[in-house]
Amino acid sequence: MAKFLTNREENYAQWYNDLVIKADLAENSAVRGCMVIKPYGYAIWEKIQAELDRLFKATGHVNAYFPLFIPKSFFSREAAHVEGFAKECAVVTHYRLKKDPDGDGIIVDEDAKLEEELIIRPTSETIIWNSYKNWIQSYRDLPILINQWANVVRWEMRTRLFLRTAEFLWQEGHTAHATSDEAKEEALKMINVYAGFAENSMAIPVIKGYKSENERFAGALDTYAIEALMQDGKALQAGTSHFLGQNFAKAFDVQFTDKTGKLDYVWATSWGVSTRLMGAIIMAHADNNGLVLPPKLAPIHVVIVPIYKNEEQLAAISAEVLKIKESLIAKGYSVKYDDRDTHKPGWKFAEYELKGVPVRLAIGPRDIENKTAEVCRRDTLEKEIVPLDKITDHIIFLLDDIQDNMLKKALSFREENTFKVDTWADFKKTLDEPGGFILAHWDGTAETENRIKEETKATIRCIPFDSPDEDGKCIYSGKPSKRRVLFARSY
Amino acid sequence: MAKFLTNREENYAQWYNDLVIKADLAENSAVRGCMVIKPYGYAIWEKIQAELDRLFKATGHVNAYFPLFIPKSFFSREAAHVEGFAKECAVVTHYRLKKDPDGDGIIVDEDAKLEEELIIRPTSETIIWNSYKNWIQSYRDLPILINQWANVVRWEMRTRLFLRTAEFLWQEGHTAHATSDEAKEEALKMINVYAGFAENSMAIPVIKGYKSENERFAGALDTYAIEALMQDGKALQAGTSHFLGQNFAKAFDVQFTDKTGKLDYVWATSWGVSTRLMGAIIMAHADNNGLVLPPKLAPIHVVIVPIYKNEEQLAAISAEVLKIKESLIAKGYSVKYDDRDTHKPGWKFAEYELKGVPVRLAIGPRDIENKTAEVCRRDTLEKEIVPLDKITDHIIFLLDDIQDNMLKKALSFREENTFKVDTWADFKKTLDEPGGFILAHWDGTAETENRIKEETKATIRCIPFDSPDEDGKCIYSGKPSKRRVLFARSY
Repeated sequence: MAKFLTNREENYAQWYNDLVIKADLAENSAVRGCMVIKPYGYAIWEKIQAELDRLFKATGHVNAYFPLFIPKSFFSREAAHVEGFAKECAVVTHYRLKKDPDGDGIIVDEDAKLEEELIIRPTSETIIWNSYKNWIQSYRDLPILINQWANVVRWEMRTRLFLRTAEFLWQEGHTAHATSDEAKEEALKMINVYAGFAENSMAIPVIKGYKSENERFAGALDTYAIEALMQDGKALQAGTSHFLGQNFAKAFDVQFTDKTGKLDYVWATSWGVSTRLMGAIIMAHADNNGLVLPPKLAPIHVVIVPIYKNEEQLAAISAEVLKIKESLIAKGYSVKYDDRDTHKPGWKFAEYELKGVPVRLAIGPRDIENKTAEVCRRDTLEKEIVPLDKITDHIIFLLDDIQDNMLKKALSFREENTFKVDTWADFKKTLDEPGGFILAHWDGTAETENRIKEETKATIRCIPFDSPDEDGKCIYSGKPSKRRVLFARSY
Repeated sequence: MAKFLTNREENYAQWYNDLVIKADLAENSAVRGCMVIKPYGYAIWEKIQAELDRLFKATGHVNAYFPLFIPKSFFSREAAHVEGFAKECAVVTHYRLKKDPDGDGIIVDEDAKLEEELIIRPTSETIIWNSYKNWIQSYRDLPILINQWANVVRWEMRTRLFLRTAEFLWQEGHTAHATSDEAKEEALKMINVYAGFAENSMAIPVIKGYKSENERFAGALDTYAIEALMQDGKALQAGTSHFLGQNFAKAFDVQFTDKTGKLDYVWATSWGVSTRLMGAIIMAHADNNGLVLPPKLAPIHVVIVPIYKNEEQLAAISAEVLKIKESLIAKGYSVKYDDRDTHKPGWKFAEYELKGVPVRLAIGPRDIENKTAEVCRRDTLEKEIVPLDKITDHIIFLLDDIQDNMLKKALSFREENTFKVDTWADFKKTLDEPGGFILAHWDGTAETENRIKEETKATIRCIPFDSPDEDGKCIYSGKPSKRRVLFARSY
């Protein structure tokens, strides 16, 4: 199967696309820029959802659901927001079709034109704050800590499966607070939740930091982001959390009476991650044999392949497999026994490597005699022979070890590909070869940031929270700088 | 609180709407016909989703996600389907907005007109079968057993929270099979899954049966439905499962090679339930005090209200409550301890009755002395004093008992309100007073069915699977009939 994947070193973009298609994660649909998320891909997304949902609820949030449609006029209310979001979007103008009087098909009924056009939500701040207006009168109604799992649409011109699609699935948290400090604390709390999820579940280390003013969410006073490094040396923004100040409360006139009886506008945050995380998992871990899934997000933890020549051998193997399977399932692991006679073991090995199943067991007649099985771990492709009476414990150990090892490997990769650069020549050279994260001084102006982007396609990914004070000179302008920021080319 | 609900006997429709709003389940949004599902309502929906998802997976289905948009031309391909679905729907015609050159706002950019309009999915058969075309070549690719959790839009003119909204949330199963029998079996299996869920989780008994040709899904050869009786004597269709024959396979040219090497069109089913189930739960069980939630779908199983006059009393109560709470949570129950000092116990009692929390505990200083608590069950509002050392077991017993009792009560109500009627005069009289389910003979023609509907607003809810053979005469036409069918006015 591996031979059908484009080699990653030869054509990274094609390797990525091949992998998404051949591992049955997603495919393009008949609608421009919209993907079909296939069952195997969706099963990974369900794992992502379940764990994030647990983390959101553990931090006091509840789920709700707001309309898909946003009245056009809502966007005009927040000046920065309309600039950022009301451009490339899907616009509903009519609510009825009718038979074409001149043909076979159906046409839009011009009599059914909406008085005001509806926009398919690209993000839901406006429709949600329009609801919050009715929910909030007093400080007693605060905080509101709501999350929504939903589909959103942004009419992107260039799309790529999972990374950039016209419709995508995401969650969007929208919280309302009585004070600025509380809202900032919430926005920070959620970027930490995202960072913890990326490291603990996705096995992807991330840099947490502030976005520069240029890169902020449209309507935010501050945007916090987590940035991950992909294997081709490009950055991927894996999640953002926004301190929105009172912008949306002002736009939708949401005021509350504080403890002293004084009226004030409500403070807001919003935060989201999307099916883009699927792209991050692929590009952080996969290899030329296919996906490598962190066990915590793998729909199948263990696949068992029998190797046999006759029904009698298969029966003996199946009897042993059943015991292993039951004991693993009892401990909460997902096990697939692939005893199909339509495919050969070698084909199955390649197939499950392609799909990134963390642990593979192969059991043949010799194993039954010796009371052993061959265990192969997907992350390193190492094989070993393990006694059957120790196999369950060994697999459980391996799954933990794979999860840890994947994070360590990704961390080493990031360390090896993060560079402190102090001159413009070095900056450009490093970007081209080997790429990666570049920590460099910047004069803090949007002008310099824009020029660097124009000349190199690199952007400031974030100003890391933990970037130490350090006097230096901007790599581009030579003006003074107080700390390094994180540059990279990005997805 | 109860005094704020309209009396159910006086104005059932207003009582329903009051309840949805005041129990914080949902509210209307700024977008015509679209609702906001509020956190408490959404928490019930999440419980519904979790259990249905478990049942779907236990019967071999997997989840996937298909685009929100459907190209207009897709609807024209299946003749019956276009009649049924391509009429009242949201049509996307443009993909960009721009600043209004003559004003402050934003307007649709006429340069960004789509070549082909996109319809927001009212149901996904067409876009899904267009994908299945590429997934199916041989009988080895079958069956495909996929479910999708999604939002859909049908531009309804008259909307009611949960019961009929322009946008709603649902799941839609779409399966593909090699034979007609297998597809029929699947459609039947799923209507049974729905019926089991209605009875076991929602505590609502349902009648399973065939839809008449008039009431079939647009594009189906056969539609199976579950019908539930609401407390006002009207029926509510709670779920449908469709045997689609080869209609969609033919429309999208999906053929497969069978075991003998012969090409044939693929056989299909689809099946769905929606946020409408929320309406069923409300109307089957709620009373003039508010919601009555079946414990299996209640976001909060037990609420505990302390009754105290000073901090010392509260501390003693809280110490006991903590023990009860921990032991219930350890067994998987959800417990809320409402020790807010901003509201009085009486207010809290009314509030949690309104929200339908199955069990309420009240603990005061006298209870602490006597080592007891007052336990109130929501379904009957009966109160009893229970020793603290038996409280956990008693609550667990009560929750099971409430679930059982609610189903029994709903079943008795249905039995008392199901009538065998043999004359047209009786039919009309019964429909007006007391309403309910009517089992009557019908001549099997669409013409008679339509006339009955025009004259009485009653429709054939279904032809029950278990309707026994019985010779009779059609209540309307007097023509011969072989079995009774189920009539009712419906939501």
